[in-house]
Formats: sequence, C-alpha cells, structure tokens
Amino acid sequence: MKVGGKSCRSIWFDDDTMTVKIIDQRWLPHEFRIVELDRRAVFATAIRDMWVRGAPLIGATAAYGIAVQMAHDPSDRSLDETWKILHQTRPTAINLRWALDEMKTLLRPVPEAGRAAAAFQRAAEICDQDVECNRLIGCHGLEIIRKIAAGKKRGEPTRILTHCNAGWLATVDWGTATSPIYHAQAAGIPLHIWVDETRPRNQGAQLTAWEMAEQRIPHQLIVDNAGGHLMQQGEVDMVIVGTDRTTAQGDVCNKIGTYLKALAAKDNNIPFYVALPSPTIDWTLGDGIREIPIEHRDEAEVTGVWGKRDDGSLARVQICPEGCRAANPAFDITPARLITGLITERGVCAASPEGLAGLFPERVITER
Amino acid sequence: MKVGGKSCRSIWFDDDTMTVKIIDQRWLPHEFRIVELDRRAVFATAIRDMWVRGAPLIGATAAYGIAVQMAHDPSDRSLDETWKILHQTRPTAINLRWALDEMKTLLRPVPEAGRAAAAFQRAAEICDQDVECNRLIGCHGLEIIRKIAAGKKRGEPTRILTHCNAGWLATVDWGTATSPIYHAQAAGIPLHIWVDETRPRNQGAQLTAWEMAEQRIPHQLIVDNAGGHLMQQGEVDMVIVGTDRTTAQGDVCNKIGTYLKALAAKDNNIPFYVALPSPTIDWTLGDGIREIPIEHRDEAEVTGVWGKRDDGSLARVQICPEGCRAANPAFDITPARLITGLITERGVCAASPEGLAGLFPERVITER
Repeated sequence: MKVGGKSCRSIWFDDDTMTVKIIDQRWLPHEFRIVELDRRAVFATAIRDMWVRGAPLIGATAAYGIAVQMAHDPSDRSLDETWKILHQTRPTAINLRWALDEMKTLLRPVPEAGRAAAAFQRAAEICDQDVECNRLIGCHGLEIIRKIAAGKKRGEPTRILTHCNAGWLATVDWGTATSPIYHAQAAGIPLHIWVDETRPRNQGAQLTAWEMAEQRIPHQLIVDNAGGHLMQQGEVDMVIVGTDRTTAQGDVCNKIGTYLKALAAKDNNIPFYVALPSPTIDWTLGDGIREIPIEHRDEAEVTGVWGKRDDGSLARVQICPEGCRAANPAFDITPARLITGLITERGVCAASPEGLAGLFPERVITER
Repeated sequence: MKVGGKSCRSIWFDDDTMTVKIIDQRWLPHEFRIVELDRRAVFATAIRDMWVRGAPLIGATAAYGIAVQMAHDPSDRSLDETWKILHQTRPTAINLRWALDEMKTLLRPVPEAGRAAAAFQRAAEICDQDVECNRLIGCHGLEIIRKIAAGKKRGEPTRILTHCNAGWLATVDWGTATSPIYHAQAAGIPLHIWVDETRPRNQGAQLTAWEMAEQRIPHQLIVDNAGGHLMQQGEVDMVIVGTDRTTAQGDVCNKIGTYLKALAAKDNNIPFYVALPSPTIDWTLGDGIREIPIEHRDEAEVTGVWGKRDDGSLARVQICPEGCRAANPAFDITPARLITGLITERGVCAASPEGLAGLFPERVITER
C-alpha cells in the first residue's frame, strides 16, 4: 500500500543490494525506518522484539530468515537449528510454524548447494502468495461492505471498527482486516474507520492510524474502552478484525481485547467479521479457550507507554506507581458463537466446523 | 485511607489555615501534592480540569466552593452565579447538581451575614455524610465478598476486578467500589485486585493502583483489553465498579469501558456489582442509553498519554501520527440486565425499578 504516496510492501528482497529489507515498525508512526536483515540472529530479534509483527508477516520474515541462513550455512544441522531458533521467537502465531515447516519440508531433499536459491525463491513465493491471499480476502470482504453501504443514504460513510493492526503492515501487503477496507475505498464507498488504540502496544494508534492516514481514509482514533459505547449509540456499522490463530471450530485468537468488542457487537446486533488467510487456521485445535496457549509479555508494556514528546524525541513514560506489578496477556479468544463470519481467500463462511470445512474440505483433520 | 501510612481524606477544611485543601490528583501517582482552594474560579478549575474527580468528591468540592464564595460575597446574585459556574464544570456527574441544589436550598432563606458559616457547616456535613455512606457501602459489600471468599481454599485470594477509580480519591474517604475491598482487607480476607488502567486518563493506573499500594493490598495493573481474557480463564471472582449516575431502572453510567467488562462478566457468569451512594441515583431517568447525556472530552486525552520519564520528569507523549483525529466519549451505559446487584448505603438490591424502590421508597418519582 501507500507510504508517502508510493507503493510499498512490509518486507522485500532488494535486488540492488541483494538483501532482505523490512520496515522497522517499532518507530512508526513517528519515524519511517527501513532496515536490512542480514543474519539469523537479526531475523530472530526482529520477530521477537516486534520490528515486524502480525501473523502473516512473521511467517514471511521467518521464511526469509531460513533463506539467509541457508546462504551462510546450508547444512541439515543449520536448517534444524534455524527452525528451532526462529520458532521460539513468538509462541502464539501459527503462521510462524507454518512457514518454518514449509521451508524445512521443501529444503530437506534439496542438495546443500541448491538450498539457498530454493529457499529465497520459496520465501518470495510465500510473500506473493500472502499478497494474493489478502487481495482475495479484500474482494470477498468488499461484497459485505457493499451490502451494508447500500443501506445508507448517498454519501453517508460506512463506519467500520477495527482492533489492533491487521493491516498491510501485519502482512506483506493489503492486510487482512484492512484489505476489504482498501478495496471498498477503491470501489468508491465512503468510509469512516474507528481505530482502537490497542493497548498495551498501541498498534492501532501507531500502525492502523498511520496506514489510514497514508491511504487517506477518514478515521478516528478511540481508546479500547470506547467501542462498546459507539456501538450502543449506533455509530458502528460493522467490525472487522484479524486473527493470529483460528481453530477448526471457528474460535478466533486475536490481540487482547478482541473478545470484548465481539461481545459488544453481539449485544448490539452489529456484524462482527474476522479476516483470515487460511494458514492462520490451526486444524488441529477445537476449543480455543482451552487449547490455545496465550503469550504473556513483559510487564513493562503495561506499566509504560511509548510515544513522541513535543520536542520530537521518542520516550517511554511510566503510567503507574513505582514498583507496580502488571499482568500482560497478549491475546484472547473470541468464541465462534460471537462471530458473524470468517472472510477467507476462498470466500466468506460461518465460524463453525461446517463453515470452515465447506471452504477447505481438503484440510480438515477428521481425527484429532 | 492511608497515605504514607497516615490517614487522609481527599478534601478537608484545615482548621489551622482556615482554608479548604485537596489532593491535586493530576500529579498522582508520581507526586503527592496538596493544594489550597481559595476562590470560586479555582474551585471551578479544580473540578473542570480534574484536580479532583469522582462524582461524590466533585459534589463535596462544589459544596465547599459555594461556602468559600459565600465568605467572599454572600448575596443572592453571587449564590446563583456560583451555582451556574460550578454546574457548568462537568456535565455528567449527578452529584454535582445534587450538592449545588442542596447548598442553594439551604442558603437562600439564611440572612446574608450567616450564609458563610451555614455553608461551611453544610459542606462539612456533606463530606461526613459521604464518608458514612461509603462506610455503609463497604459493610454491605463486605458480606458479598465474604460469601465468595468462603468458597475458596484457605489462603487463596478473592480476585476482584475494578475499572477506573471509584476509590477513596473519588469520594471523601473509603471510596465506593473500593470500600468493600478495604472492609474485606480489615476483615482479614486475602485479596487480589485486578486494576484496569482505564484509558484515556488512566485513573486505574494512576489512582487505584496508588491507593492499593498505599493500603498494601495485593494488586496487578492490566490494560483495559485484558479483563475479558482473565474472566475467560477463571481468574476473576467478581467485578465491582462505581458509577457517575444510575437511573431509576438501574442502568449505570460509569467510566467508558465499564459496559465491556459487564458484558464479559455476564458471558462468564461472574458477579458484576456496582457500588453507589444514593445521591448518584437520578430518579428522573429511566433508559440510561437514551436519556443520559455523555460527556465528550478533549481529543488530546486519546492521542497522548501522561506519565513519568526515567529521569523523574513528567511528560506527555503522542501515541499516534501527527494530526490524527480522535473521539473521546468519557462514559458509557451498563444496562441493568448486566448487573448482578447495586451496593448502596442501605443494602444490596437488584438493578431494577423494584430493587431500587425497595431500598429507597421515599425517593421514587411516580410520574416522569
């Protein structure tokens, strides 16, 4: 999507420098920094410390991480080690494991001399597949927005609430939750996006608001507490969020707080959609609340907030008393019963075993 | 309650200096500052700019504001003007109007020469009544906590989630939502408090966490997004919140985000209680969602966060792109159907017209 009016992806192979480049998202929206990832340890840091984040982008980055390591040491041992090192960086995102498995399965039978080339090629394919997948999600989601927009007076915006950043910055391009929004913009549908700030890391305020501004889509930032009130007052037409992992029965694991918005949407009869590329589906799991391990992150994310001071410098401020302890679960589970539909690259389905199996019959695991 | 181990109220008349003093809560938890309120304009600023906040404390402050003005100019015109000026400071809190009406009704028949003395006496009574009222709320709420604690293994804490600050800092002493907690502590019941940070102004992180720390009650700060997950995981035994205004049918207007926690509590069969002194009840209103006007506050509260830097200085950081617009509704409505019970100074009742009328039969307005 657009940065300063020019098209950009979140990760790319730079043919001039022959290196992998990413947007270091830690500095957004205050600074737009591009960094080179040149060795395995840097890839691991980039994923763990969230220079890149978002399930699909984590997968793509891990794929390139293996490729870069194969150029350095294409041995089996190196491949296995890299799988392990990168897999440990983030425990929740299913795409990470998917991409790592994909690379390992592909590379294992390839002679060592050919592994780097094969790996770079496959990593590029994974990126392109992600872009295409998200484009299709956007096409299917557009039809939902179109129907809602058709019920409005001419010129009245369709008001969409989104949580966290399931934008193009969380993928390689288009985004998942944002892809229907970008497609609706392209189709000339007036929009107004409610952007949840998404504490503790404020990915909504930092990334989604930035994406919307760069793309010139009307939007307003709100605190995570505000969505329920806006829904009560009839100010929200639909909700679209992304997901880090979806179970075979349609339970959705997404950024902490998603569940609260789903409850409010249900209570106010507002359609609640989850946009997901199919690699995000974990076909081995059923009950999300019982079966998905939830990452607990550093207390400092809760006790402090990063941002820009008046003088332009970036700073962290502590918002609570010295020594205050915090709990920081990073995700929650939105049960399938609260979800109006899942928007996938193959179309929209109910959040149910039947719904998912209908779109992806070949992937269903019959015995768990 | 305790500050540095010593008992303190949030507002008091200092007999030594013959002035009204408050804790300037804008600096908490980083600095503990006491300021003197010496003239009407300062009282208005203190309420409007939230040096003091919380419905009962706003009422007490307004009462003292009239008293201080009466000492300066006890005329009818001065009384009427002061009512208007102070009433305009915060639109939502019902206690503000209650306290102002109380003072005006009392003072109008008093000769000018006696107004200041009568006003100071009544303001002190309003404070003492608030303290007693909150103490009673604590006694009734304690019985609820006692029952929940009885179902736990010896030594296991009762885990209570609270939103915003309905603590002693929001009242004159004890607090509303915190009074049952402080009474449970005194009764030797092990507790663990989940403190919602409560964006945008972070009163949970700044004030409730500070109160808990000063009172030495175990607690953890969480982002507003986290409560639903904790409830899903069985980590919350009950919720207690305060309220800025409650309708005659039991709908509760409280800090933005309360509604989301009530939905999650309902979805997980967790008792959700609202603690309220009866002046907070607006007997003229029925349907809270349709009838209570919601204050919209400055966008800057959403686009930035205040806190303390590593060097000890206080700073605001901007969390979103330059020029990002925000919406900032300050309250939402929790419908009565989501509320397990209302804890009042006269006991606990259902959040319903019958429940409230049962406890306060003399206050019911039969024709609206």
